[in-house]
Amino acid sequence: MVTVSATNFPAVNGTPERPSWPGLIEAYRQYLPVTQTTPVVTLLEGNTPLIPVPAIAQIIGKQVRVFVKYDGLNPTGSFKDRGMTMAISKAKEAGAKAVICASTGNTSAAAAAYARRGGMRAFVLIPDGYVALGKLAQALLYGAEVLAIKGNFDQALEIVREMAQSYPVTLVNSVNPYRLEGQKTAAFEIVEVLGNAPDWLCIPVGNAGNITAYWMGFCQYHQDGKCDRLPRMMGFQASGASPLVTGKVVTNPETLATAIRIGNPANWEKAIATQQASLGQFAAVTDEEILDAYRMLASQEGIFCEPASAASVAGLLKVKDQVPPGATVVCVLTGNGLKDPDTAIKHCQNSFKQGIEPEVAAVAQAMGF
Amino acid sequence: MVTVSATNFPAVNGTPERPSWPGLIEAYRQYLPVTQTTPVVTLLEGNTPLIPVPAIAQIIGKQVRVFVKYDGLNPTGSFKDRGMTMAISKAKEAGAKAVICASTGNTSAAAAAYARRGGMRAFVLIPDGYVALGKLAQALLYGAEVLAIKGNFDQALEIVREMAQSYPVTLVNSVNPYRLEGQKTAAFEIVEVLGNAPDWLCIPVGNAGNITAYWMGFCQYHQDGKCDRLPRMMGFQASGASPLVTGKVVTNPETLATAIRIGNPANWEKAIATQQASLGQFAAVTDEEILDAYRMLASQEGIFCEPASAASVAGLLKVKDQVPPGATVVCVLTGNGLKDPDTAIKHCQNSFKQGIEPEVAAVAQAMGF
Repeated sequence: MVTVSATNFPAVNGTPERPSWPGLIEAYRQYLPVTQTTPVVTLLEGNTPLIPVPAIAQIIGKQVRVFVKYDGLNPTGSFKDRGMTMAISKAKEAGAKAVICASTGNTSAAAAAYARRGGMRAFVLIPDGYVALGKLAQALLYGAEVLAIKGNFDQALEIVREMAQSYPVTLVNSVNPYRLEGQKTAAFEIVEVLGNAPDWLCIPVGNAGNITAYWMGFCQYHQDGKCDRLPRMMGFQASGASPLVTGKVVTNPETLATAIRIGNPANWEKAIATQQASLGQFAAVTDEEILDAYRMLASQEGIFCEPASAASVAGLLKVKDQVPPGATVVCVLTGNGLKDPDTAIKHCQNSFKQGIEPEVAAVAQAMGF
Repeated sequence: MVTVSATNFPAVNGTPERPSWPGLIEAYRQYLPVTQTTPVVTLLEGNTPLIPVPAIAQIIGKQVRVFVKYDGLNPTGSFKDRGMTMAISKAKEAGAKAVICASTGNTSAAAAAYARRGGMRAFVLIPDGYVALGKLAQALLYGAEVLAIKGNFDQALEIVREMAQSYPVTLVNSVNPYRLEGQKTAAFEIVEVLGNAPDWLCIPVGNAGNITAYWMGFCQYHQDGKCDRLPRMMGFQASGASPLVTGKVVTNPETLATAIRIGNPANWEKAIATQQASLGQFAAVTDEEILDAYRMLASQEGIFCEPASAASVAGLLKVKDQVPPGATVVCVLTGNGLKDPDTAIKHCQNSFKQGIEPEVAAVAQAMGF
């Protein structure tokens, strides 16, 4: 499936011994709406590791195997890069000189990085006073031009939609259809590494775009004979923002997992269809359960993810009695924990002893020797 | 060269279509001091992208090709993971139940993640009052036990050395010989992707371990016929901490590039030998030059690195007149920019307009339409 792009990596001398990863558009060109003339804007996103998490598997028992798809190791630190390489390449193909989105998080960082790399301006619209500069620092460093309006987030979203219709700027919010096309490639990678689809795919659900994209990816690979089964799609929401679990829009969604703090998912219908078709399930996890999984992933598996990402593992542990014996389970970790240092500071197991005498004996005592 | 570990990734059904990256110990087993019985503690580190940076190449001109080796996409966000998978695996093989280091930065995070994944305790010794909690949050979340002594960093280093001699804890500071063995694999990856060694290898230099490790890697691959040339090793230090440039120990090193704020490099002699053997060079770059490169990488190439990492690009631009026409240059980016949000906030081009009326016309005007 992987083809090496000669233009991205001309070998210095002869043929490279190991084909290098060319980014997901080149790797999966035949499954994506691109042509040979589409200008590919890439940071070599994708090809993220599928890491075994044996401590979590042990909690479940039943000889279950559990892996995390650690998409926080994408170039800007989240799975958004998968969709953005597509959205920005197609915007460039269409002649756009600028892109716009309403976002305070991972989308704005990814949009800025890819747009600037593609030689375009990147506008980010946010509500006035809504966020601290820290949340936006990454996007600003990438060269985003941030505009804060005297209004709320819904107004910002409405304005960027209108801007994209009336001015020569391309909308790269989640309504951009190319984003899900890029995101589906994570499912391809999982199938290639495992040799088949997993039994379960556990995934955090906010706007419900990613669960929809993964399902599309698994189905396409199944149609093409790359796998002979399809996973149950297990979507987990934060209990303070769980419209797909309750069936009702949440007016004031609340959770510390900000990346999934969404009360009215853009892809509601598609997500329901995915759950039904895959015989999957939606369930809610509390912030405490999310934090427990977040700390367990870090302190037992060595993996540092965003709080929202840990919802997939928290959810798996919550419904562990339903996991079939011997099953292979993949939990999606959507973002890098370094994106949210405040949560890490606030919720780490603070094992920090101060004021120790600078002597070996004193240190040994503090260590418990 | 890459062999797939059957134990790491048993295929669900048949053979995976694409061999997945098994982590650097499995990939380069024959070049590393491990045996079949060494317990491999891995987070699938290594295999980081070699990303073309055309805007920087254009500044140099002369049809030069420039790539960055973006090691900030390792599992804990820095190149330290390469050395730590080796150091921790060997510690586990030797029966260690705990590891110790003196570090406030990337080393402590990597040590904690790998030690905990390997089922060991991770102790981190630091000087009292030396750092903000934020700098240590990642290590603490990974489960590090941090001890602050009433003393300075040199005392902390001395105590961890003595602890490792007198107690059953393994020292994983840079004096641990396995660290450089792991780090050299980055050079292997570069040769494999390019099909040969680059003409120049530009690298930030602090303790001078990494420049030493890369050179070892290039030389070993050259000896094995994997490349038919060796790069000039170009080491760049911050001007406030440039002992290898001036030839004198710096008592109070000063630079915002904290990861290379070192006045008396542990690998001084080896670094000099590398520079001489490779016909390379040491040079200093100012903090302003580092910040310029840091911002340029983000806002023109879409790549967000630690300030210290940008020293390699700042250095390349400083000596650009010496680059041979048509040369292939690789700049090493050692850490992820998300590690240091404070610098990003302080030094981004703050393009942030507030108080805009929530109307399309007002937003369009603010955007310059």
